[in-house]
Amino acid sequence: MSLREDPREARPFRSAGRYVPARGIYTESARLQRLDWVRSVTGTGLRSMQHTQLDAERLTGNIEGFVGSVEIPVGLAGPLLFCGENVQGEIYAPMATTEGALVSSATRGSLAVSMAGGVSTCAVSQSMTRAPVFAFSRMSAASLFALTISQYFNDLRTVIRQVSKHAELISIEPAVLGRTVHLKFTYTTGDAAGQNMTTACTWHACQWILQQDHLIDSQELDSFIIEGNTSGDKKASFQSMTEGRGIRVTADCVLPEGIIKRVLNTTPDELTAGYHHIASGAVHGGVLGSNANAANIVAAIFTATGQDIACVHESSVGQFILERTPVGVYASMTLPGLAVGTVGGGTHLPAQRELLEVMGCTGKGSAARLAEVIAGFALALDLSTVSAAVSGHFVSAHERLGRNRPTR
Amino acid sequence: MSLREDPREARPFRSAGRYVPARGIYTESARLQRLDWVRSVTGTGLRSMQHTQLDAERLTGNIEGFVGSVEIPVGLAGPLLFCGENVQGEIYAPMATTEGALVSSATRGSLAVSMAGGVSTCAVSQSMTRAPVFAFSRMSAASLFALTISQYFNDLRTVIRQVSKHAELISIEPAVLGRTVHLKFTYTTGDAAGQNMTTACTWHACQWILQQDHLIDSQELDSFIIEGNTSGDKKASFQSMTEGRGIRVTADCVLPEGIIKRVLNTTPDELTAGYHHIASGAVHGGVLGSNANAANIVAAIFTATGQDIACVHESSVGQFILERTPVGVYASMTLPGLAVGTVGGGTHLPAQRELLEVMGCTGKGSAARLAEVIAGFALALDLSTVSAAVSGHFVSAHERLGRNRPTR
Amino acid sequence: MSLREDPREARPFRSAGRYVPARGIYTESARLQRLDWVRSVTGTGLRSMQHTQLDAERLTGNIEGFVGSVEIPVGLAGPLLFCGENVQGEIYAPMATTEGALVSSATRGSLAVSMAGGVSTCAVSQSMTRAPVFAFSRMSAASLFALTISQYFNDLRTVIRQVSKHAELISIEPAVLGRTVHLKFTYTTGDAAGQNMTTACTWHACQWILQQDHLIDSQELDSFIIEGNTSGDKKASFQSMTEGRGIRVTADCVLPEGIIKRVLNTTPDELTAGYHHIASGAVHGGVLGSNANAANIVAAIFTATGQDIACVHESSVGQFILERTPVGVYASMTLPGLAVGTVGGGTHLPAQRELLEVMGCTGKGSAARLAEVIAGFALALDLSTVSAAVSGHFVSAHERLGRNRPTR
Amino acid sequence: MSLREDPREARPFRSAGRYVPARGIYTESARLQRLDWVRSVTGTGLRSMQHTQLDAERLTGNIEGFVGSVEIPVGLAGPLLFCGENVQGEIYAPMATTEGALVSSATRGSLAVSMAGGVSTCAVSQSMTRAPVFAFSRMSAASLFALTISQYFNDLRTVIRQVSKHAELISIEPAVLGRTVHLKFTYTTGDAAGQNMTTACTWHACQWILQQDHLIDSQELDSFIIEGNTSGDKKASFQSMTEGRGIRVTADCVLPEGIIKRVLNTTPDELTAGYHHIASGAVHGGVLGSNANAANIVAAIFTATGQDIACVHESSVGQFILERTPVGVYASMTLPGLAVGTVGGGTHLPAQRELLEVMGCTGKGSAARLAEVIAGFALALDLSTVSAAVSGHFVSAHERLGRNRPTR
Repeated sequence: MSLREDPREARPFRSAGRYVPARGIYTESARLQRLDWVRSVTGTGLRSMQHTQLDAERLTGNIEGFVGSVEIPVGLAGPLLFCGENVQGEIYAPMATTEGALVSSATRGSLAVSMAGGVSTCAVSQSMTRAPVFAFSRMSAASLFALTISQYFNDLRTVIRQVSKHAELISIEPAVLGRTVHLKFTYTTGDAAGQNMTTACTWHACQWILQQDHLIDSQELDSFIIEGNTSGDKKASFQSMTEGRGIRVTADCVLPEGIIKRVLNTTPDELTAGYHHIASGAVHGGVLGSNANAANIVAAIFTATGQDIACVHESSVGQFILERTPVGVYASMTLPGLAVGTVGGGTHLPAQRELLEVMGCTGKGSAARLAEVIAGFALALDLSTVSAAVSGHFVSAHERLGRNRPTR
Repeated sequence: MSLREDPREARPFRSAGRYVPARGIYTESARLQRLDWVRSVTGTGLRSMQHTQLDAERLTGNIEGFVGSVEIPVGLAGPLLFCGENVQGEIYAPMATTEGALVSSATRGSLAVSMAGGVSTCAVSQSMTRAPVFAFSRMSAASLFALTISQYFNDLRTVIRQVSKHAELISIEPAVLGRTVHLKFTYTTGDAAGQNMTTACTWHACQWILQQDHLIDSQELDSFIIEGNTSGDKKASFQSMTEGRGIRVTADCVLPEGIIKRVLNTTPDELTAGYHHIASGAVHGGVLGSNANAANIVAAIFTATGQDIACVHESSVGQFILERTPVGVYASMTLPGLAVGTVGGGTHLPAQRELLEVMGCTGKGSAARLAEVIAGFALALDLSTVSAAVSGHFVSAHERLGRNRPTR
Repeated sequence: MSLREDPREARPFRSAGRYVPARGIYTESARLQRLDWVRSVTGTGLRSMQHTQLDAERLTGNIEGFVGSVEIPVGLAGPLLFCGENVQGEIYAPMATTEGALVSSATRGSLAVSMAGGVSTCAVSQSMTRAPVFAFSRMSAASLFALTISQYFNDLRTVIRQVSKHAELISIEPAVLGRTVHLKFTYTTGDAAGQNMTTACTWHACQWILQQDHLIDSQELDSFIIEGNTSGDKKASFQSMTEGRGIRVTADCVLPEGIIKRVLNTTPDELTAGYHHIASGAVHGGVLGSNANAANIVAAIFTATGQDIACVHESSVGQFILERTPVGVYASMTLPGLAVGTVGGGTHLPAQRELLEVMGCTGKGSAARLAEVIAGFALALDLSTVSAAVSGHFVSAHERLGRNRPTR
Repeated sequence: MSLREDPREARPFRSAGRYVPARGIYTESARLQRLDWVRSVTGTGLRSMQHTQLDAERLTGNIEGFVGSVEIPVGLAGPLLFCGENVQGEIYAPMATTEGALVSSATRGSLAVSMAGGVSTCAVSQSMTRAPVFAFSRMSAASLFALTISQYFNDLRTVIRQVSKHAELISIEPAVLGRTVHLKFTYTTGDAAGQNMTTACTWHACQWILQQDHLIDSQELDSFIIEGNTSGDKKASFQSMTEGRGIRVTADCVLPEGIIKRVLNTTPDELTAGYHHIASGAVHGGVLGSNANAANIVAAIFTATGQDIACVHESSVGQFILERTPVGVYASMTLPGLAVGTVGGGTHLPAQRELLEVMGCTGKGSAARLAEVIAGFALALDLSTVSAAVSGHFVSAHERLGRNRPTR
C-alpha cells in the first residue's frame, strides 16, 4: 500500500524492529555487547569506539544504550585577566571545538583585553524556571485560579523543600492565555544548572495543587502538563533574553587605541564602524540578541565542562555592545541566560571535571564563576572577530587555521 | 588605581601574561608539553587528559593549543523506520549526550513512529550564506550599488569557481540599510556544511568587486566587512527560520490511536491538547520556532558526528506541528536551517566518522541524508516528550533515568 | 555642490524654510490663517478642510499647527453579547475604518458568538511602563546601582504622588546591560492610557534619584535618558507581549457545530484546519503574536474612540487560539498590551466621546471595559475571517464589499 | 445555566439580537435612520455625529453600517527639504493625531535636517504579497507540489492579468511546512497599496491551480485557504521586516555639530550616546526593528491620507541608525514595509485626497513619493525625539504641549 494513498486510514501495526541489547544495564560488558551488536547490524568496524575512559557504571544518570564515546579536541585559550565579582586573575579557558582559529582568536582578544587592564564581570542573577500549564474548561476558571494561586506560595515552598535540598522556590507567576494558566516557577539551584531538580520540584508542587479542592474545581480542570514552553527550556526565546533563565552575566572592558592597533590590527574607528554594521544587520535579520559569535565560546566551554550541550541553543543568546570613547572603545557582553552548573549533568565526567578545576570552577559559588569566565571570553572573542572582519584578517586566519584554502 | 575612577583615561599597558607554549606546533609532544605546562600553571593533575586517541598532526584545521580531549558518552537510539527521499529503512542514531532519558525517550518515540509505518523525510533545500557589508558615504551611493551589482553575477561565479571546486554561487541579494548594503551570497556546498569555504569564496569575490572602479567609486566607499550578521552565521535568527540556512528539512508521520495508547501511554486527544499548550506557550514566550525539544536531537547528533557544536545555537530552531485526525494524529517537524555536513569540520575525527558510517552518512548526498535522519529523530523525540508530559511520565522518567530524585 | 561628493564636510547652514504661521495660537482664526497659508504655498484648494466641528481652543494638548480635520467613516458592528468582568449584555461597537467588509464580517462573527451564548472577557492586568536609562562609566557602577535602587521604592512613590494623582507606582525593575541600567517603572493609571503622566512621573522620580549622592556617584554617571526602548512605548516588542503593557485582556467563547455551519458557512473541522494553517504560518513568518486580523478591530475602535492611533502598532499584537471540542470549537483571543484609556488623549473630542458613550465606556473602570469590548470583537472578527478564508467566502466578500472586482 | 458548568455541552441557540437597520443601503437617509436607531437603542445623543461631509453613496467599498464620522485633527509639520528619488524640495506633511508635541517635534527635526542640506530618500522596492496554503494528506505530496508549481508561473500571470489591470505577478515562492505549502505570491500594484486586488488575483490564480489535475491530485489535497499568515498582512512580522511588504524605503541625512547644538539643543556625543541606549534597549526588549517613534509619523500620515489605519500595526516597523562622524552625526531611517497607496482604500475621501495633493502625492508614481515623505519625516522626528530625551527637553515639551502637567 502506498504511503500516500490514504494516510488517514489505520493500517496494521508493523512489528517492532530489532532493539539494541542489554537495555538498562550499565556495565562495561553490556557496552561491549551493544557495540558488537551495532557492528553486526550496521556492518561497520567502529574500531575507535572500542576504547573509552568513561566508566559505564557511573553513567546511570547520563545516558542509555551506551556504546562508547566521541572525543572532542580541547585547546587552551587565554590567559584572560579577570577583575570580576566571582573570578579574579588570569584564567586559561579550555575549549572543546573543531573550528580552526577559534582558540587562537579568543587568545588574541584575551591578550588585548588583559593588556588594557582586564575584563570586569558580574553574575547579575541566577534562576531556573519551569512553567506547567493548567487548562480549564473556560477562561473564567483560569483567571480565578491565576488570581488565587499566589496565596499558596508558602505552601508550595514547603512542598518543594521536601523534594530537593538544593532548589529554592523564589517566585510563581501566572500568565492567563485563553482558558489556560501557564504558571512560571522560578528557583535558585545552587551550583547546579538545575533543570532536572526544578522539574521534579515543580511536578510535586503541581501534584499538591491538583489535590486542593478549594483551589481547583476538578470539574473545571481539563488537563495539566508539566511544561508549556514558557520556561524557555531548550528553546531560544525572547522571554529568556529579557527575563533571564539560568545565570544572567555581564562583562565589560575598555580598550585604548594603542592596544587596538598593536594587538587587533585595526583602529577604534574601524572597529566601531564594524560594530555598527553587525548590530544593524542583527536587527535587519531578526537575530535573537546581537553579537558576532558568542555561540562559539558558549559551545566550546559547555562541551569542555560537561554542560548540557543542547542548552547551547538557548544559552548562546548574547548582547555585545561597543561604544567609541575619546581614547579607544568601551565594550560589553551580556549573556542573559546561561544554563550552567558545576555539579550535576556531565560535570562529574573525569576530563570535564578536571577542566572545571583548571578554571577554579569547583565548590560553592563556582557556577557563577564559570558564567563570568564564559562571558569574559565571549567578549574577548567578539572583539577579536569584529577586528578581524574589519581588517580583512578574518578570512586569512580561517584560510590559515581552518580547513579551507583556495584551490588555486 | 581603581578601575572605576577614570576608565576613559589611557593607562599604561599591562605586559602580556604567560602564553601556552609550543604555539603553532601540531605534534603529540607539543600537546604533552602544553599539558604539563597547564598542570604546573594551574596546579591541577589533569590525569584523564593524558591519553587521547586523537592524532595531533591531523588537527591542523580544527584546533589550536591542543591539550587533549573530552569524551562525550554515546548512546544508540532507535531503530526508526525511514521512508525518506535520502534515507530508507531502519536507522540507529548515535547520540552524544549527558542528559539521562534522552536516548530512551527518542527510542520510545521511534518505536511508535516505526510501528505506524515510519517517518517520511525530505531535504527541501540546501544552501550556505555569507553576507558582507559595503558601507558608503551616503544612501544614494548604496542604493546605486544595490541596483547595479546583480549584473555582475556571472563574473562573481567565475571568480568563485577559482576559489573552490565545491562551492557554487546560486544567488546574490542586496539589502539597502541606510548607507550600507548587506550583500547576501547564497551557495550550494556539496556535502560540506560549507561555512569556511563560502567565507573564502565571498571574500575573494568581494576583493574583485572592490577593484571594479565602474562599480564602486572608492571615494564613496567608507568601509567593507566580510559579514554583517545578516547571514545568520552562529546566531539564531528569524531570517534563517524563514529563508533557511544550511539544509531545510521536513519530516512527518501519522500515529493511529492504538499505537499512541500502547506505546506512548496517552490518547490522541490528550496528546493534541498537550501540543496546543506548548504551541501557544511558544508564541507567548517569543520562542524562535515552536517545538518541545528539537535541540536535544540536534545537539546529540551534531556532537556525535563532528559537526560544529556552536551551530547547535542556530540549527536547533524547529517547527513541530501536530493535528488530530479521525484515527489518531498527524505530526511533522520542520528544521529550517541545519548547518550540517559529512565532510569538513570535525567529521574526519575517527569516532565521529565511524558514527556517520553507522547511519550510512558518507559519500555523495550524505549531508542531505544526515539532515533527514536528524529531522526524523527530532520528530520522534518531540512526540515522546509531549506524550510523557501529558501523561505525567516525563517527571518519573527523569527521576528514574536522570540524576535527580526526590530527597524524601 | 553635489550631496554625494563630501558629506562629511561641514557645509554652510541653509536658512530655514517658511514656517506655518500663527505658531502656538489655538484659535479658529489662527486655524483659518494657517489653512489659507497652506493653500497659497501648495496651490491646493483644500475645500473640504474649511469646515470642522473641532474647537481649536480645546486642542491645546492634542495638536500643533492645526489646520482642520479628516473625517474617518464610522460603521456600527454587532450586537455582540458580553458576559465579561467589566461588560455584560449586548454591545454595538463603532468602527472607524475605510476597509470594506470589516464591519460586516465583525457583525457576522458577533452573531455566531452571541447565538452560542456570548463572549466571556477579562481584563487580566493593567499597567503603564516607562524605562529610563542610567549610563555609568563601567559595569561595576551600573550593577551597584541596580542592587541598591530597590531600597528607594517608597521614596520614589512619595515623589511620584506629588506629580500625579492618577498614576501609582507599583514596581521598579532594573536591567543591567553592560554599563547601563534600564530601570523599568510600572504604574497603574486609572482610566487613562497614561503614557504622558507616567513620563512626567518618571522624569521627576529620576531627577530625585540623580540628586541622591549616596545612590549615584556623579563622577561615575555618564548620561541619563528618559527612555531606552525597554518600555515598549510605540514599538511592537516581545517584551510587551510577554509582560504586558497597558491592559492585558482575554476573551473566549465556545461555538457549537450548528452555529458554525449556519452562521459561518463552514464546519468545525474546516475551521480548525484553517486555524492550524494560520497558526503555523505565523511561526514560520516570525509574526509577533498569532492571529488573523486583530489589528483591524484595534485600529477601528482606537480611531473611533480617540485613542493614540500610533499605538495601533504596539497594541495590535494578539494571540488567537482555537481548539476542536467534541461539539464544536473553543476559541480565545488574548491582547497582551492595549494602550487604551477613556480619559486623556483624544477621548474628549466630541464624536469620539459620544462613541465611548455608545459602548458605556465612560466613568470609573471604563478603560478595562473598553479593553474587554475590543478583545471580544477581535475574537468575533477572527472567527469570521478564518471561516471566510476556509470557505472561500473571504474573497467574494471583499469583491462585493471592498473596492476590487475582477476587470473581466 | 451557569456558563461555567458545562461549556462543552451544546446549549439551545440564542436568538439573534436586534440588528442595525437599513443593511446594505448606502444613502444619507439610511445613515440617519441607523443613527436614530442607535440613539434609541443606546440612549445616547450622538449630536456631533449628525453632520458629516462624507457622501454615503461613495462609501460602498469602504464601510458597512455607516452612521457618521469621527474627525481627527490635522496639523501641518515641516517644511522638510527633500533630495529624494521621487520627491524634491520643501514638503509640509499633514499629520492627523491627538498626541500633543508630535507636530512640533517633527517640525523641529525637519528644521535641523533642512538646515543641514535636507534628507535623501529612496523607495528601494515595492511589492504586495498574498500567501495561500495548500494542505495535502502527507508531506510527500506537498513537496512534490512545491517542486512543480514554479513551472506554471507564466500560466498564473496570464490568469492574473484577466483579473486586474493593475496587479502584476512578479514571483511565486513555495514554503513546505509539514504537509502544507504556503505559496507566496508577490505583485507590483502600481500606486495602490493593493491588498484587495492581490487577494482577488491570488484567489483566481488558486482556483486555476485547483483545477489542474496533473498538478494537484484531488485525493491528496485536504484543504485550501487563501491566506496562512506568511504574507504578513495586518501582522507585524520579522519576515516582512527582512523581505519587505509594500514599499521598502530608506532616508538619510547628515547633521553637523552646529545645527545639533542650535536646533536640537544637544551635542553629537550626547545624541550618539542616547542612540546607543535606545538601540541596545530595543534588542533587550525584543523590539521588532529599532527606532524611537516611527509609529507616530506612520500613524499620523496614514490617518491623514486615507490609508488603511490597521496597517499602522505592520507598517510602523522601522530601523533608525545613527553614527558619529568627525563633524557631527550621520542618520538613516529604513521602513521595510509601508503598505501605502495613493489610489484605493480611503484615499478618495475628500479631505484625505486634498491632503495627498498638499504633498504632491497624486498621479503616477505618487505611492513611492508618499513613502519617501513618510520616511523623511520619520527620520526627522526620531532625531528630534532622541535629542529631546537626552537633553531632558522631552518631558518638558510633553508637559507644555501634552495634556499632563504635574499637579503640584
